Amino acid sequence: MQTVWEQRYARRVGRIQGSAIRELLKVTELPGAISLAGGLPAAEIFPVEKIAAVTQRILEEHGQQALQYGMTEGYTPLRELLAQRLEQDGLNVSADNILITSGSQQGLDLLGKIMIDAGDYLLVESPTYLGALQACNAYEPEYVAVRSDEEGIVTDELEPALQKNPKFIYALPNFQNPTGVTFTLERRRKLVEMASRYEVPIIEDDPYSQLRFEGEALPSLLTLENERQQERGTPYQGNVIQLNTFSKVLTPGLRLGWVVAPTHVIRKLVLAKQGTDLHTATFNQMIAYELAHEGFLEEHLPLIRQTYRERRDAMLAALEEFFPDNVHWTRPQGGMFLWLTLPEGIDTAQLLGEALEYRIAFVPGASFHPCGGGANTIRLSFSNATPELIEEAIRRLGRLLHTRMLRA
Amino acid sequence: MQTVWEQRYARRVGRIQGSAIRELLKVTELPGAISLAGGLPAAEIFPVEKIAAVTQRILEEHGQQALQYGMTEGYTPLRELLAQRLEQDGLNVSADNILITSGSQQGLDLLGKIMIDAGDYLLVESPTYLGALQACNAYEPEYVAVRSDEEGIVTDELEPALQKNPKFIYALPNFQNPTGVTFTLERRRKLVEMASRYEVPIIEDDPYSQLRFEGEALPSLLTLENERQQERGTPYQGNVIQLNTFSKVLTPGLRLGWVVAPTHVIRKLVLAKQGTDLHTATFNQMIAYELAHEGFLEEHLPLIRQTYRERRDAMLAALEEFFPDNVHWTRPQGGMFLWLTLPEGIDTAQLLGEALEYRIAFVPGASFHPCGGGANTIRLSFSNATPELIEEAIRRLGRLLHTRMLRA
Repeated sequence: MQTVWEQRYARRVGRIQGSAIRELLKVTELPGAISLAGGLPAAEIFPVEKIAAVTQRILEEHGQQALQYGMTEGYTPLRELLAQRLEQDGLNVSADNILITSGSQQGLDLLGKIMIDAGDYLLVESPTYLGALQACNAYEPEYVAVRSDEEGIVTDELEPALQKNPKFIYALPNFQNPTGVTFTLERRRKLVEMASRYEVPIIEDDPYSQLRFEGEALPSLLTLENERQQERGTPYQGNVIQLNTFSKVLTPGLRLGWVVAPTHVIRKLVLAKQGTDLHTATFNQMIAYELAHEGFLEEHLPLIRQTYRERRDAMLAALEEFFPDNVHWTRPQGGMFLWLTLPEGIDTAQLLGEALEYRIAFVPGASFHPCGGGANTIRLSFSNATPELIEEAIRRLGRLLHTRMLRA
Repeated sequence: MQTVWEQRYARRVGRIQGSAIRELLKVTELPGAISLAGGLPAAEIFPVEKIAAVTQRILEEHGQQALQYGMTEGYTPLRELLAQRLEQDGLNVSADNILITSGSQQGLDLLGKIMIDAGDYLLVESPTYLGALQACNAYEPEYVAVRSDEEGIVTDELEPALQKNPKFIYALPNFQNPTGVTFTLERRRKLVEMASRYEVPIIEDDPYSQLRFEGEALPSLLTLENERQQERGTPYQGNVIQLNTFSKVLTPGLRLGWVVAPTHVIRKLVLAKQGTDLHTATFNQMIAYELAHEGFLEEHLPLIRQTYRERRDAMLAALEEFFPDNVHWTRPQGGMFLWLTLPEGIDTAQLLGEALEYRIAFVPGASFHPCGGGANTIRLSFSNATPELIEEAIRRLGRLLHTRMLRA
């Protein structure tokens, strides 16, 4: 029997869909299950004792402030610190260009709220981060997708998409979720240049750049756009907005992210955030500030990088050993994910049902494709399980694939 | 010079307006300033040491879980505990009827997101909570307002508003923000009965009911609707959704609230919350759970109630002593606010400018009126300043009012 509420849902409810990932998290609580599905950091290397120590200090020294309502913009010392770090990279920004958010997921929601009218086109990579699609879907956009390959978004195919005048481009240039792919410098320059030419702004989502364990870091889209404007003698206009987060370099459970944007956009985001959750917990912001301020993040990052490198290596080795020759995968130099492409005709959503019987979970790739396709792809996370469990999971999955292909 | 972002804002940006309150918080950082503006709890009675103790325990015993990603629905033990407490009040609910939110402000945003289409009517009291208007405005509703008096929403004037078929009724029956008024039992019954007859659901916002320091507690709208349905032999359908928060009974800086709703609505809210901020910080939820579970909130509430009673008494006494006879005010039995009505023709927004020269801040009442009016009203908060500062603030304000009325 319907409640009066159910008869009255807003139209957009049809667009607000669940994530296969979240449902899977439940299945993987079974004993013996190994999940390569969720994008969970390695909890056993969370700096729990360090966090406990600064938490005590904050409550002793600033308890009332930490537990009182705070400014919507965020905790000022944290905003100033984040701005200083960007300034060191040559960007002309101040704390007024920073908004603290409840995870970078909230940055996506707030940008959706202030930018998207129903029916607007958004230009995204395909595949792209499912959570970005979920955040934006509530504002009823249409998507125009541009294919990615192992060098990132295929800039040679951008032009027709830009001609649709999308509201913005959403891009994940480092160790992309879901593919693990990093845009080459050439593709980055081309993307920034073309976006500027078509006057289409870019949202650069950058949760993983600090998780590089191999190869050279590349300049962000934000940095490249800034350099371009300086060369042309135009002032920084902020055509690129950057989203970032403490979830991957500290812990996700604090729910802390930030947006770097032109001051005018920050003011609109602040108003939107006021109506959305008033502000992000000051307590949590002060913890992150203390740790960042005293240089702890830089001390801690090598451990995260080393851990994830070992796990990626374990996954690559196991894939090599146990998987059929006709499956292909990416070889990310950082981040948390790699991407499998199976032979055409294999439906990985269906495969997941069988894998769960082997107590292995992964995310079928189709849902990362906003305009369809990708039914034969899979996202695997290498950040959360130990090398031993990763090897065991890939072994079981490999057995399933071999059996399956014999049947076919 | 406009950035490309500014040229591309969504239509709804025009509806997302700032709160006078937040801007005022900045002014009140001046030395010697006394603010009766913001709805801030008394920070000096925050249980900082108690929170420090449970925080240490949580990090020692469950550090990895507290700092990892969690379920969108919220921390299960906390949801179960909140459901049990409602069951003790006779409601037939389980953890599946509870969603943990990032403050009850987020509950408003998420309900707006799943319920409001542009142009929908919402039925609200006038005046009503400004933050609710800010949350809903992003979804572009129209408002139909029903007047309140000292007994709450004037139910005799509900009928024409209900005939406009509003999407829902938003009501704050206990110590309302901004007026401090509590609905009488008769008005509560009438509201619930008429809403049911017109099949218009109710969102009951209930942050302050635990802050009663005088008089008898009255049943919530949720309880009354539940009783009505049991009498009629119909199953609980959840025509009333309730929003609640830890901000006023513990501390606001943790940003923790919850929604009580039919399971079907909770599922939609969960999907909306996934896209909005993934989940509320597990760490913060575990702190609230530990304190609620061990009965600390019940131990702590008498101190909050006693503190606010003293401050309300100080404010009422000072108003009596220092204010002109033609100013009227409410006498709340709990909560954090009281409401002044000045003679017609006095614009309190203009008065605020003069009051700030006296270093006193308050919130002019007009912004709480979604359909206009109330230019001669003021919201005063008695929760945050000490009795001595309240007396001093009211003395200064009284002097300003006397001077002003002599001039007039």
